[in-house]
Amino acid sequence: MAMTNKLTITLLLLISIAFSHCLAFRVEVDAEEFEPTHHEGQQEGPGGGQGGGSGQGWEEEATNNPFYFGKERFRNWFQSNEGFVKLLPKFTQRSSSLFRGIENYRFMFMEMEPKTFFVPHHVDADYVSLVLQGSGVVSFVTDKAKESFQITKGDVVRVPSAVTHFYTNTNETVPLRLAKIVVPDNNPGHFEVFLPSRSQSKQSYFNGFTKDVLSASFNIPEELVERLITGFQQTREGVVRSVTPEQIKELSEHATSPSNKHKHKDDKDDKDTTRIFNPFNLFKQDPIYSNDLGNFHEANPKKFSQLQDIDIGVSWLNLKQGSLFLPQINSKSTFVVFVENGCARFEMASPSTFQGQQQQQQKWSGQGEEAEEEQEEETSGQVHKIVSRVCKGEVFVIPAGHPIVTVAPEQNLVAVGFGINAFNSTRTFLAGQENVLSNLDNVATRLTFGVGSKLADKLFSSQNYSHFAPMVRSQQSPEERKPPAFQSIFNFAGF
Amino acid sequence: MAMTNKLTITLLLLISIAFSHCLAFRVEVDAEEFEPTHHEGQQEGPGGGQGGGSGQGWEEEATNNPFYFGKERFRNWFQSNEGFVKLLPKFTQRSSSLFRGIENYRFMFMEMEPKTFFVPHHVDADYVSLVLQGSGVVSFVTDKAKESFQITKGDVVRVPSAVTHFYTNTNETVPLRLAKIVVPDNNPGHFEVFLPSRSQSKQSYFNGFTKDVLSASFNIPEELVERLITGFQQTREGVVRSVTPEQIKELSEHATSPSNKHKHKDDKDDKDTTRIFNPFNLFKQDPIYSNDLGNFHEANPKKFSQLQDIDIGVSWLNLKQGSLFLPQINSKSTFVVFVENGCARFEMASPSTFQGQQQQQQKWSGQGEEAEEEQEEETSGQVHKIVSRVCKGEVFVIPAGHPIVTVAPEQNLVAVGFGINAFNSTRTFLAGQENVLSNLDNVATRLTFGVGSKLADKLFSSQNYSHFAPMVRSQQSPEERKPPAFQSIFNFAGF
Amino acid sequence: MAMTNKLTITLLLLISIAFSHCLAFRVEVDAEEFEPTHHEGQQEGPGGGQGGGSGQGWEEEATNNPFYFGKERFRNWFQSNEGFVKLLPKFTQRSSSLFRGIENYRFMFMEMEPKTFFVPHHVDADYVSLVLQGSGVVSFVTDKAKESFQITKGDVVRVPSAVTHFYTNTNETVPLRLAKIVVPDNNPGHFEVFLPSRSQSKQSYFNGFTKDVLSASFNIPEELVERLITGFQQTREGVVRSVTPEQIKELSEHATSPSNKHKHKDDKDDKDTTRIFNPFNLFKQDPIYSNDLGNFHEANPKKFSQLQDIDIGVSWLNLKQGSLFLPQINSKSTFVVFVENGCARFEMASPSTFQGQQQQQQKWSGQGEEAEEEQEEETSGQVHKIVSRVCKGEVFVIPAGHPIVTVAPEQNLVAVGFGINAFNSTRTFLAGQENVLSNLDNVATRLTFGVGSKLADKLFSSQNYSHFAPMVRSQQSPEERKPPAFQSIFNFAGF
Repeated sequence: MAMTNKLTITLLLLISIAFSHCLAFRVEVDAEEFEPTHHEGQQEGPGGGQGGGSGQGWEEEATNNPFYFGKERFRNWFQSNEGFVKLLPKFTQRSSSLFRGIENYRFMFMEMEPKTFFVPHHVDADYVSLVLQGSGVVSFVTDKAKESFQITKGDVVRVPSAVTHFYTNTNETVPLRLAKIVVPDNNPGHFEVFLPSRSQSKQSYFNGFTKDVLSASFNIPEELVERLITGFQQTREGVVRSVTPEQIKELSEHATSPSNKHKHKDDKDDKDTTRIFNPFNLFKQDPIYSNDLGNFHEANPKKFSQLQDIDIGVSWLNLKQGSLFLPQINSKSTFVVFVENGCARFEMASPSTFQGQQQQQQKWSGQGEEAEEEQEEETSGQVHKIVSRVCKGEVFVIPAGHPIVTVAPEQNLVAVGFGINAFNSTRTFLAGQENVLSNLDNVATRLTFGVGSKLADKLFSSQNYSHFAPMVRSQQSPEERKPPAFQSIFNFAGF
Repeated sequence: MAMTNKLTITLLLLISIAFSHCLAFRVEVDAEEFEPTHHEGQQEGPGGGQGGGSGQGWEEEATNNPFYFGKERFRNWFQSNEGFVKLLPKFTQRSSSLFRGIENYRFMFMEMEPKTFFVPHHVDADYVSLVLQGSGVVSFVTDKAKESFQITKGDVVRVPSAVTHFYTNTNETVPLRLAKIVVPDNNPGHFEVFLPSRSQSKQSYFNGFTKDVLSASFNIPEELVERLITGFQQTREGVVRSVTPEQIKELSEHATSPSNKHKHKDDKDDKDTTRIFNPFNLFKQDPIYSNDLGNFHEANPKKFSQLQDIDIGVSWLNLKQGSLFLPQINSKSTFVVFVENGCARFEMASPSTFQGQQQQQQKWSGQGEEAEEEQEEETSGQVHKIVSRVCKGEVFVIPAGHPIVTVAPEQNLVAVGFGINAFNSTRTFLAGQENVLSNLDNVATRLTFGVGSKLADKLFSSQNYSHFAPMVRSQQSPEERKPPAFQSIFNFAGF
Repeated sequence: MAMTNKLTITLLLLISIAFSHCLAFRVEVDAEEFEPTHHEGQQEGPGGGQGGGSGQGWEEEATNNPFYFGKERFRNWFQSNEGFVKLLPKFTQRSSSLFRGIENYRFMFMEMEPKTFFVPHHVDADYVSLVLQGSGVVSFVTDKAKESFQITKGDVVRVPSAVTHFYTNTNETVPLRLAKIVVPDNNPGHFEVFLPSRSQSKQSYFNGFTKDVLSASFNIPEELVERLITGFQQTREGVVRSVTPEQIKELSEHATSPSNKHKHKDDKDDKDTTRIFNPFNLFKQDPIYSNDLGNFHEANPKKFSQLQDIDIGVSWLNLKQGSLFLPQINSKSTFVVFVENGCARFEMASPSTFQGQQQQQQKWSGQGEEAEEEQEEETSGQVHKIVSRVCKGEVFVIPAGHPIVTVAPEQNLVAVGFGINAFNSTRTFLAGQENVLSNLDNVATRLTFGVGSKLADKLFSSQNYSHFAPMVRSQQSPEERKPPAFQSIFNFAGF
């Protein structure tokens, strides 16, 4: 590669002269219309950021950016000393036009303190959950049997509609954290939690029946029904409850570890049911992209039958501080991304005009952007810069087909993503060694980008990294800049 | 079981003491907030009920209960001395939020008097119909052939989109009754009926063409087209017409009986087409649940290819007076239930808050229920008692995942159900021998219901019946009460 | 047939007497309610038509006919001397109730002048395009390779979501015209075009990223990024650009012709991907209907894997001047029909009442039609005549299940259609030799149409043509009328 570079650079020097006329068409005045050159906002680093949780921040007012969901948008479904369940409102509540395609998906996450028990419940929805942290047991109860599985960080658990299940955090010190994507059955984007037992501020679903019917159904006295199940009580026991070490032992003693389950289960009849309940671990697969700067694990419904009918993929990104997950496109999947650790900077190209965008001020890099009033949706050729700082506990949504880049400027980043409509989706990179645009033939590149033959060859092939690359800093902070060899020659060449 | 009971009861006596503290948390005052104890409405029996057709009635004002559809909600698509077709409005017209998931389904039923003929027609919809009563012939006409099938009570007929078909009631005395679930093709929840011939107040679809085009198409004079097909006339012939015994003989002579069809048809090419037209009878399959108190037949799309692409299940419930079809959950299916005979009492647990619920007064058992204003949809833990008396000719909708119990307090009940999204749905019982909660292990039951070890074992296993159980009456009518042995001991035990 | 005719006609003479009583129920006065007999509008021929492009016209005010989309409804997404892209607004913008079922489909067409290049782009949508005229090359670029295919009139090209592709019109004289049906991924009925490079009034999607990220991603200096990709410039180069003969040669040199591709490709791994990109030609299949008056080619997703997941059929109709494509019904498909040449007259039967219909005046054949105010959607038995003159460059939508006839009264007609939901759809003819109604048995026809046995046999079997038939003119222009033998005898018989 190095030798080819030297050769081409020489040629580029010659081309640069030939092209100086072509490049002359850049009109400085009008350029400001899209990218004003005042860079006062680009001093990145610790500051009064209002988006994330780390205290570090870029100047940004993302309140009108509908793809970003800050912590304040979550609602508590339940909260106590033993844990909490937080639910993001319907995406269409944020933007009914942008998110109609994912109207029937909800994002939630929950945390259970060490040595706690989440009471049995079901929802009128399918869901997929991913263990972010901790370890415990998930148990499913059907009319045939109870099945319990040990779960740990990276485990993906598919919970089918209306199946009664419960969780135990068996760990003595670490909270059990799960992120979930929920697909309601009855009412798009709306689901209910059904509890057989009463808890603090939650009634049992048996309260939906009259006492005589319950008495007849269970063949026990009405009074007992009321005392044990339906009667109101000022119990302090929430849906998440503390348990003793002995109870933990009992609760986890029949739990199967996912890997063993996979090996020993050969019953053909139970195969389907078993598989759907059987958790699997993202980290037991090789990462699909990996280098020194990051790695990316992904489970696709093509491979994992648990994800098939729900058509959701699950992914886990580790990105080193100072690196970027190269620009890419997901062809069919909309990704709901949750930042588990650190802060991400997402940059996304959006030709859409959305409500409130007129007031939106993208000051991330000091680039104020004046969105024009667009009445004719299709005729605008403007591309909007959606730049968001998203920190631990926050969500960003990446629609299908939209170019996106993920950056970790502040610290190591851990982010997980649920890919909706994952089955037929593919990921295409727009930069890096496996860049789709480097497969354009020379003539097409020349015609498309208005460059000469040699520059056409180089334009999309100067990046030696694949998938993850170092974040070369802009010229505003020269002391940190470590330009690669090739770039310096470009500079030398007078570009 | 009896021996085990004796043993456990002794233990329960001990436990009851131990638990008297635990149970002491029941606060009488607050209990009224959910279930006031004035029982003046519980004198069940003959009364001025306004819901059903039998004259018997409970006090109930179900007008604000969106899951119940009384007779007055049906619209006549057609009505004459020879028969009628009644159509329920779109479910979303009742509640746009609760029923968005079944927006594209419509319920209708029709009745043809003895010795009548329903003229050929097609709809821009797929539908499944179930013969409730009577016998006759259904005929399909395609560009290749005509196929006629004898149909009788319990037969399920799949009619594909836009296929021209007609019905004959060949019986001399019994009306032919069908219930139908319709899945429109063009416009969610809206379909049209297309008739090649004119009838009273209905035009032929050939009226959509100009006379010269019709004349050219049929190669007959315009005048004849107008006289026979498109011309307006004050005919008294409705879409359902009386026929002579000779005509009935002609109409039914090539009709195949479903069972024979199944055996003799071996043409591989026609297999798919044949199968979809081929009716089958619910009662030729063994009931999936059955005992002395009731039985339940069900056809699932997994087994019947006719139901596969439309993904609808069909079920038939017979329930003996004084019995209940035990509390259960359908995991993915929403059931549209039609009462064919008698009156059902449906009790359903609903955590949802719906429009008009504030004014709803569930007086079924005298239990007024004050629904609180809930602004935050997810945070309410209250469970609503949806209790409805549904009589012959009326409809009740059971959303997926919602616990439901069906009771036949007045007389034997016959109800049929169409299960939307049936393919992957399973039914789980919440009471009875095959109760899902009895599969909770002891520790989970203890933690969940706040009971001791022995009571935990008993709580969901005291009912010896499966699926159907006797309706043990409440204490308001002690002369009718026949408590089972186990219950009396509970009472004796001082619970 | 002739002999049979003679025999039957004799019998018909006798029947006509017997039926004179039956036919007497035709009430002249009321008939006018639906079809007034003033025929002043039927002088067809050259006139001041306002719908089409040919100058010939029928009197018609179709502005309130929601199934017809005149040229003025298209919006320019792009237009220059080198070509244009025209997009029809969402169908639901025209009628939210009628077109909810096809809300997620968009129709567009594009034209590229000879020797032009459409720059690489992708859309957040799947689409199918049909080459209407001309020849060229379509190229797909993925992260693995570039594939180019020669395309010509009748070729169907499936472009998957988010795949970067570009077109070249390699022809020196003929414009390249394509019709497309687009199925958006994110937001029902709404999609965006993403361009890696900038063009006149269109930004590159790389403008969605900050300069430092782009510099790091491509490993080239920021300045170069701005000059070549993101910087604003007053370029006159649109998305369609002129190219030199040498560039055309380069662009097309690796293009595969569809037919060769099909034969030589045996790589099993690439099979799926290859197939979806591989264009096929409608005219390489035998027409499914053909006679001297017309022919009809159709590609169904059952046969072509390229169309399978998108579930769209593509059809091409050639109809001779003075002929009609006989009345028919598509069972599940809604057809979006685009007239490529000549003018079609579509006649469609619609029981629906739609907004604005009250003001609609169908004067096509001088038949004013007074649509009644219909509050109860289902109870109207009236059938509306939707008669539309649709000329080159215009669109007509045929909903599933709706009887439709296509006439070419003025000149030879070329029309193409995209059938939405094509997989399970079948086409049934209502007239002609393969007429579904001719398969009604005699007794059913008698009962349905109120005719005698012999007329029942004849009513739907007098047309000897299949699929395409001559347009026999109405009696208002007697000099042009050439009634077939059979019709004259009908007339003689005094009908």
